[in-house]
Amino acid sequence: VARTRLVVVGGDAAGMSAASQARKRRDADELEIVAFERGGHVSYSACGLPYYAGDVVKDWHDLIARTPEQFAEQGIDARTGHEVEAIDLEARRVRVRDLAAGRSGDEPFDALVVATGAEPLRPPIPGIDLPGVHGLSILQDGIDLRRAIDAGPARAVVVGGGYIGLEAAEALVNRGVPTALVEAGPQVMGHIDPDMGELVSQATRDVGVELYTEEKVEAVEGDGRVRAVRTGSRTLEADLVVLGLGTRPAVGLAEAAGITLGPSGAIAVNARMQTPHEGVWAAGDCVQARHVVSGQPVNYHLGTIANKQGRVCGINLGGGYATFPGVLGTAVSRICAVEVARTGLSEAELAQLGLEWETATVDSTTRAGYFPGAAPIRTKVVAERRSGRLLGAQIVGREGAAKRIDVFAAAIWNGMAVDDMVHLDLSYAPPFSPVWDPVLIAVRKLSEQVERDLQACL
Amino acid sequence: VARTRLVVVGGDAAGMSAASQARKRRDADELEIVAFERGGHVSYSACGLPYYAGDVVKDWHDLIARTPEQFAEQGIDARTGHEVEAIDLEARRVRVRDLAAGRSGDEPFDALVVATGAEPLRPPIPGIDLPGVHGLSILQDGIDLRRAIDAGPARAVVVGGGYIGLEAAEALVNRGVPTALVEAGPQVMGHIDPDMGELVSQATRDVGVELYTEEKVEAVEGDGRVRAVRTGSRTLEADLVVLGLGTRPAVGLAEAAGITLGPSGAIAVNARMQTPHEGVWAAGDCVQARHVVSGQPVNYHLGTIANKQGRVCGINLGGGYATFPGVLGTAVSRICAVEVARTGLSEAELAQLGLEWETATVDSTTRAGYFPGAAPIRTKVVAERRSGRLLGAQIVGREGAAKRIDVFAAAIWNGMAVDDMVHLDLSYAPPFSPVWDPVLIAVRKLSEQVERDLQACL
Repeated sequence: VARTRLVVVGGDAAGMSAASQARKRRDADELEIVAFERGGHVSYSACGLPYYAGDVVKDWHDLIARTPEQFAEQGIDARTGHEVEAIDLEARRVRVRDLAAGRSGDEPFDALVVATGAEPLRPPIPGIDLPGVHGLSILQDGIDLRRAIDAGPARAVVVGGGYIGLEAAEALVNRGVPTALVEAGPQVMGHIDPDMGELVSQATRDVGVELYTEEKVEAVEGDGRVRAVRTGSRTLEADLVVLGLGTRPAVGLAEAAGITLGPSGAIAVNARMQTPHEGVWAAGDCVQARHVVSGQPVNYHLGTIANKQGRVCGINLGGGYATFPGVLGTAVSRICAVEVARTGLSEAELAQLGLEWETATVDSTTRAGYFPGAAPIRTKVVAERRSGRLLGAQIVGREGAAKRIDVFAAAIWNGMAVDDMVHLDLSYAPPFSPVWDPVLIAVRKLSEQVERDLQACL
Repeated sequence: VARTRLVVVGGDAAGMSAASQARKRRDADELEIVAFERGGHVSYSACGLPYYAGDVVKDWHDLIARTPEQFAEQGIDARTGHEVEAIDLEARRVRVRDLAAGRSGDEPFDALVVATGAEPLRPPIPGIDLPGVHGLSILQDGIDLRRAIDAGPARAVVVGGGYIGLEAAEALVNRGVPTALVEAGPQVMGHIDPDMGELVSQATRDVGVELYTEEKVEAVEGDGRVRAVRTGSRTLEADLVVLGLGTRPAVGLAEAAGITLGPSGAIAVNARMQTPHEGVWAAGDCVQARHVVSGQPVNYHLGTIANKQGRVCGINLGGGYATFPGVLGTAVSRICAVEVARTGLSEAELAQLGLEWETATVDSTTRAGYFPGAAPIRTKVVAERRSGRLLGAQIVGREGAAKRIDVFAAAIWNGMAVDDMVHLDLSYAPPFSPVWDPVLIAVRKLSEQVERDLQACL
């Protein structure tokens, strides 16, 4: 057999997982693998960046899972500082710029994996490019932000109250920087329901963050350097600004090459992670996935999904067979001691889908109520009306609360109804949970509601 | 309608759950509910007793979920200090002894719930009844043991290395009592596989417990008071002994009444918790349940199961409809900082069933490896050969490790195969887990093994 050449565009979770899996199944004399990464590092934990900036993680090298040297030992040629500028599907080649050398050249491929990830949203706010304004999406951003915090800023403003914004705010207040957070929506964590989001907003205030919701940033002010952030309602002084305005799939390159995008705006792939274009695959934040509950195409930017998709892609490239079944959008985060998690669909998403649902919310404790360290946990569950099928769950609580979301994820994944879930044989001992785990208390309450509602219909 | 009379025998988790649920659905003018409990308290957390003895829980009143007075407000007549001596199925009455008054009388019933629970095994070891030898099954045992530890014993011996034995050993060493533990089997936690059990044995030694495995206690020695415990190999001085020799279903009363027992030795019930005898129900530690994986009748003594069965029983007694689908034997415990959990079937149980299986064991961390507080977690998974259906899982690790067993429980409950489980959309953020949660790393490894094994068969 002729040796085939696999080119991977983007050297993070999805791309390098695909490369590794393909290599595991096909030797270097059968398959050549080259990965191009425009940044300075491959395969690192972007989710760890706020914790490096906040000095929780001391050394950024610890965030790197594998270096190009380690990939080389595995027979994978991972080239950092190499930006793919264009993909030519007809000619089967990519145009690659060596950023250090400042020159471009063509690289042929037999198979291509597009793993360009996501890019931060940067709306055209005046002053957004002033020195002192930081993003937090690539490793260098984390290094820069850490250095800026080390320099002892007088006041910081975080723009955006999603994961990155809240994690950045945590980093700043933990390091003693007076911090304001400006969020355009009515609450932080806009992807969870307002009632649960309000708890997170409160937690954000409780750790000392000045929180301004329903305020849009109109300008970043400064003279050669950031000096303040102006919203519709006020001007907040700041010598350090962190942007957490969300992300979008980085599909510019793919789009220019004529690679098909789906309705979510991300690259359309089948369950094996193939695009409709011969030999062209895609994985990670830049591709769309099927939502397991709604069946709709969605595009989430989560490292867990990118890793799994990269693995599926690589198994197929290596001659195996694997499919990626879809996503639930399970996610977890924290603002200092308050943990937040979600899975499945939120009420806003359900309304958009035209579904009808019932919810139950319960307060419980992470351990037996009488056990030292028992911490509050609020659990909200959402089930389809009548069928009682679990559609979503959200948790806000303290230490030990949030990871319980995974039990809901497993239940939703399997299409369980709340009245079946009540019987799930979950573990119990006083240091670990009440005898009825908060997960079960929530579904028990909701199953009783669904039953009452059914009887009222008869 | 004539008022019917429900008599509940045994006032703990199963019995009082059944009473409460029945009351929720039927008013006092329709249904009279009387519960007889021979002990001094109803509805308390027996699982909390070792932690009260160990002074982790300061006040034993905190272990009481509800008092007879609270049940009375709900219209449930819960009588402590009342021992049911006999059940007469023909005459529809029970013989009840008022222990304080020292007299017995008959109490009629229309419906009966047998919730007599489990009783500790007390083999006929010479000296087992000497003062200073403690059990740890009812509230008074916990109060007595706490008082005995408060008195400052010189040396303690714990007999039996199951949950109760290990929790008692933790209590003793935490309170500074030099403690030895004698276990007849080759390891502590005999219900988990030997390779995982060895970790727990090591953890037990590491906290300073002198551990003697494969040693049977032959006698408790003493002269009016315990002085030593003699095994086949040595004599261990002790002025305090705690017995944790396991439990059996308390079915003497039921058996004497002619109530049918199942092959597990516990009371046989259908999915609605009915015995074959008209109007006679049973729930909790004294009844047998179907194991969801094996389909076999089993009898576990776990508060979680007792609560769920009591609830199902009470819903049915109240005129509703509910069934109890079965158990996985999910359980969690700890010996000081080391957490242990299991669900599904162990290798020994699989061998007994004649099934063939494959296992994978992985070491990971509870948080991202680089994140402070990342603690070791070893996860073992067992899947059926060829089908890859998950059959069991076990976890040994440190803080934050063990509760992950619930994700396995949900997956096994739904009959998931390990290669499907790999795709489960579980939550991730650096303070909560590695990007591949240990649960997923374990099933990923096992699914690769199952695939290789399948290919080797072709």
